Amino acid sequence: MSKEKPSAPKGTRDFGPAQMIRRKFIFQTIEDTFKRYGFLPIETPAMENLDTLLGKYGEEGDKLLFKILNSGDFLKGLPEGELQNADPVKISMLMCDRGLRYDLTVPFARYVVQYRNEISFPFRRYQIQPVWRADKPQKGRYREFYQCDVDVVGSNSLLNEVEMLQIADEVFSRLGIPVTIRMNNRKILAGMAGVLGVTDRLSALTVAVDKLEKVGIGKVKEELHEKGIAPEVIARLQPVLEMKGTAAEKLRSMRRFLEGSHTGLQGLCEIEEVFGLLEKLEIKAQLEFDLSLARGLDYYTGAIIEVVTNEIRMGSLCGGGRYDDLTGIFGLENVSGVGISFGADRIYDVMEQLDSFPDDAVKSTRLLFVNFGTEEVVHCLRLLQEIRRAGINAEIYPDQIKLKKQMNYADNRKIPFVALVGDEEIKNHRITIKNMFSGEQKSMSLPELIDHLRT
Amino acid sequence: MSKEKPSAPKGTRDFGPAQMIRRKFIFQTIEDTFKRYGFLPIETPAMENLDTLLGKYGEEGDKLLFKILNSGDFLKGLPEGELQNADPVKISMLMCDRGLRYDLTVPFARYVVQYRNEISFPFRRYQIQPVWRADKPQKGRYREFYQCDVDVVGSNSLLNEVEMLQIADEVFSRLGIPVTIRMNNRKILAGMAGVLGVTDRLSALTVAVDKLEKVGIGKVKEELHEKGIAPEVIARLQPVLEMKGTAAEKLRSMRRFLEGSHTGLQGLCEIEEVFGLLEKLEIKAQLEFDLSLARGLDYYTGAIIEVVTNEIRMGSLCGGGRYDDLTGIFGLENVSGVGISFGADRIYDVMEQLDSFPDDAVKSTRLLFVNFGTEEVVHCLRLLQEIRRAGINAEIYPDQIKLKKQMNYADNRKIPFVALVGDEEIKNHRITIKNMFSGEQKSMSLPELIDHLRT
Repeated sequence: MSKEKPSAPKGTRDFGPAQMIRRKFIFQTIEDTFKRYGFLPIETPAMENLDTLLGKYGEEGDKLLFKILNSGDFLKGLPEGELQNADPVKISMLMCDRGLRYDLTVPFARYVVQYRNEISFPFRRYQIQPVWRADKPQKGRYREFYQCDVDVVGSNSLLNEVEMLQIADEVFSRLGIPVTIRMNNRKILAGMAGVLGVTDRLSALTVAVDKLEKVGIGKVKEELHEKGIAPEVIARLQPVLEMKGTAAEKLRSMRRFLEGSHTGLQGLCEIEEVFGLLEKLEIKAQLEFDLSLARGLDYYTGAIIEVVTNEIRMGSLCGGGRYDDLTGIFGLENVSGVGISFGADRIYDVMEQLDSFPDDAVKSTRLLFVNFGTEEVVHCLRLLQEIRRAGINAEIYPDQIKLKKQMNYADNRKIPFVALVGDEEIKNHRITIKNMFSGEQKSMSLPELIDHLRT
Repeated sequence: MSKEKPSAPKGTRDFGPAQMIRRKFIFQTIEDTFKRYGFLPIETPAMENLDTLLGKYGEEGDKLLFKILNSGDFLKGLPEGELQNADPVKISMLMCDRGLRYDLTVPFARYVVQYRNEISFPFRRYQIQPVWRADKPQKGRYREFYQCDVDVVGSNSLLNEVEMLQIADEVFSRLGIPVTIRMNNRKILAGMAGVLGVTDRLSALTVAVDKLEKVGIGKVKEELHEKGIAPEVIARLQPVLEMKGTAAEKLRSMRRFLEGSHTGLQGLCEIEEVFGLLEKLEIKAQLEFDLSLARGLDYYTGAIIEVVTNEIRMGSLCGGGRYDDLTGIFGLENVSGVGISFGADRIYDVMEQLDSFPDDAVKSTRLLFVNFGTEEVVHCLRLLQEIRRAGINAEIYPDQIKLKKQMNYADNRKIPFVALVGDEEIKNHRITIKNMFSGEQKSMSLPELIDHLRT
């Protein structure tokens, strides 16, 4: 039994009351918005079979999976001989059948395939749960963090894209974070590659282009060059990447650029339709048609969405897009989906820096009864019953200790009101109430007190 | 890439929308009650260092911990030579530094010790999170399940016990589950052992006595006999175990029985004080002084609490007690605590069998707009904005398909109202609304519709 001061594992965090109350405010705002749009909750287990997880996140992703050692005699299935020189990845697969989920998308795909006969499509689901990645911990990157996903599967309609943007707009406006929503379309990227004659290099192209905002045009050109894209192709691409103007202007220019590409023009139509509808709905976020946006290209097949804040330099707070073959990895073809995912941890950091948590997001106990002794306590417990029934969070100090110490507790807990009920008050059916901020004391009846605390 | 139908790991569960909405109702009721009593939320990571977990749950418990394989080259630290014949437990400790939490109590103890300088004591915290155990899966026993814990640490006052019972009473009364709260006190059990002259066999005694309700007095006597308790001791114990009557009657009889035991009498006083206060507060649950109740004796030092339902044969729905040395395992002595834990999964099963979920616990989308085509959609999206702003969950069918199919979707989703908005309605600023249960159709203005859906 270690007597050392214990701690949580590296890269994971404990959340104390002050943080929790603020985190709950974020989760509740997101969840409430999801519900308002008719989305339904699901939850999947923390563990998935490794078969389900492996090969879905690339080679790098496989390495970042937390694997769970089989129970009992996990050494049984191992090959004979020395293990020390064996391949750890192969050995781990023999000792571990399960891993912790890496995101909510793959478990969701599994869920849709597994329950396809019970689901009414289009299936509108949300899921708010933690995920785990064996990443090297660093500032803003954790080994356990929450994702808040909302998706529609089984519908090709662009109305779903419109709703995703409405949801993002509403969540951030309710959280008090001014944002820009960037949008692009995988079909436009494919069309660009086609027009430039580098369809086979689409992946290399978009990986480089995706870095434009972070590293600037010079570095992007360098990377394209290193990847063997011809100088004349880069020269034709540069004006597209540097294109300025409104969405309408960009659409016009791109229509000329993509003239020969059916796919590319299709992508432009989709952007135009979504932007057109959103204009009529007067969303609060700034909307941007961003030709360099790619976000994990191999995954998305249509819309690509990213939300950033204008106030603070920070990665995206929300992102997503359309994927035409989410469930294909589990053998169910032709189920198109579109969804976005909110990063609660980054949103928390932004709100803290912007100081945009509302005051009442941190309110817990509103009233503390001072403990004057056994006889007074019975009376106070009865008053507390009424006060709690009225929906007010309240407590009594459990021990009969010095008044000063009890007041210190109220101070530390930031409890705004303290009730003092002694002989005199009991006899007169009154409660002396002290405002802990102003120091002011007042005598009230119980109904007056309840009224007072409610406002 | 496997094309087999995928599934969740054995012993774990997916929760679909219907279950989730009911589960959330349970969690929200519990959490809301915790908050009403001034308790504060914390959360700890799913993983703990194995050092923190090992040795806290007995030898059996250690075996039920899910261990997480170290990342990277986990074979590096292993001893040279063949591993196949080595002790799996020892080997697992060399390859795994972390495990999944087994309960919320040990992580809470770690939390209190780690943050002791930042916490205002008495610390009133609640924690609602899943825990994992590598148990053999069977009916009602899962490898991942939720615990809902509420504890006060740093106060010896019996008021805390009273509050725990009030909380249990309120939670079950709000959930519509009639319950009996059983209470005992570890000091009474110790006193009994003392009076009977078997203080050194306290553990064996209580383990046997704890089974009384399940197996009956005959089997308990057998077990005591097998454990080497003398026949005359068993003969003196039997009338105590079979004692009938009210709490007051039992207290009277026990006061005679425990006459020579200071500790035992102390336990009786505590029970008497707690029951006395609760009587004045008129709780709804039945209250029972149960002399055979022990619940993991090695852990509790005072009150022992268990809640069962009278309606259905099922294990306890909630349990807990006072522990005087929770944080001692991490080197912080003399921090007394008392707490209870609600089992959300069992509560769910009971409510399902009692059919006591309220109707509106399963309500999600209240209104579906039929999709008649592009022009109507813009109008409907604007109406939807207003309806959602009024706090009503609503959606529009995303694809323009046959009316019958859209109606089927509303049926399957159990959406109570469908809005039909065509040319005529747009022109006249009306909405035709169909009640999906009665089949009745009405024409309404937007404010009328919002009023209608709110009631």
